[in-house]
Amino acid sequence: MKFLVFEGLDGSGKSSLMAALEQELQKHQIDFHRTREPGGTPLGDEIRNMILRTEGPSPLARAELLLYEASRAQHVDQVIRPKLQAGTWVLCDRFSASSVAFQSGGREISEKDVVMLNEFATGGLKADLTILLDLPVEESRRRRQGRGAANGESEDRIESEADTFHEKVRQSFLAQARADEKSWLVLDAKKTPQELFVLLLTALAEKNILR
Amino acid sequence: MKFLVFEGLDGSGKSSLMAALEQELQKHQIDFHRTREPGGTPLGDEIRNMILRTEGPSPLARAELLLYEASRAQHVDQVIRPKLQAGTWVLCDRFSASSVAFQSGGREISEKDVVMLNEFATGGLKADLTILLDLPVEESRRRRQGRGAANGESEDRIESEADTFHEKVRQSFLAQARADEKSWLVLDAKKTPQELFVLLLTALAEKNILR
Repeated sequence: MKFLVFEGLDGSGKSSLMAALEQELQKHQIDFHRTREPGGTPLGDEIRNMILRTEGPSPLARAELLLYEASRAQHVDQVIRPKLQAGTWVLCDRFSASSVAFQSGGREISEKDVVMLNEFATGGLKADLTILLDLPVEESRRRRQGRGAANGESEDRIESEADTFHEKVRQSFLAQARADEKSWLVLDAKKTPQELFVLLLTALAEKNILR
Repeated sequence: MKFLVFEGLDGSGKSSLMAALEQELQKHQIDFHRTREPGGTPLGDEIRNMILRTEGPSPLARAELLLYEASRAQHVDQVIRPKLQAGTWVLCDRFSASSVAFQSGGREISEKDVVMLNEFATGGLKADLTILLDLPVEESRRRRQGRGAANGESEDRIESEADTFHEKVRQSFLAQARADEKSWLVLDAKKTPQELFVLLLTALAEKNILR
């Protein structure tokens, strides 16, 4: 089994690429579980709402990070580890790298503290591959706003942060990928969904993850 | 201003002793704020409910600790530090020592990890004095059950843990007090409320906290 994580700014196309990979895994008759953070468990979904809602009390920076990590610990212990141990692949929309990007890059909490909290919450679990869909901030905003206009949803509390915040998040993702090239695949999210899917399959084959 | 924390098993008499001290502070015309953990903020009260409820999804051990710490970070940043900076005394029912006692002592998470998380959540804030109301487990259970019978409330998820759990919690509190005698006051909670109050005032005078 493999643990694959998809990271990137909102609107970068994580959902579409995950859906395409799901179809491919079905063709290979590979058992998989698709999940997301924050959330992925009933308790995690409650925590997700506390973090992302725009009405009601909001966490300050350190409480926000600890809520993400609480959701993550529950997710790892209740879902991700048991699935992997049962031989099921896990595809996860956001994981530890998002906490480094958003809470250290964006909120400027020390990266050392975020890494330490990730380590505690995950019990050391790492993704086999983290796929970063890299997108310029202005393009992410344009896509988010287009999506909002189409489905009537307004931005959540994190999405509604300023562009300068999202630029720091983007740069943190890129820095994490550069620091651990073997575990990351960086894709240019301005490419077409079909191009991205081919690049992903090529990388999964090269890395002997999926042939 | 001073930051005073009250610790002990449920039923040990924290509330009564805190109420007596509040009256004394009023006599001295000292401005104070009484609060508790988990909770103490609107967000913290929501987290408190997630931790203590006996119905609905419950956190596993590591998520539980991270939820306590999220509540604590919000509490410190939004209430405790601002109050202390404004010169207000803060009386708090449970603080960092409870996480060591319940999550390390009781749940057997490594004490090093709990101390590290406390340090992150509090930003290093320590109580001027932690008052431990020490009570044997069987007496705590007897008092909790009497209180439940009187007000019709059932035990919360932590209270309903086995006596062996609460015994480990008690021993952790005592060990923490022994390891840092200057910052702790250990009181025998089997004494009468009046005796406990006199012992507390004597200690506060000796330590030049309240004369």
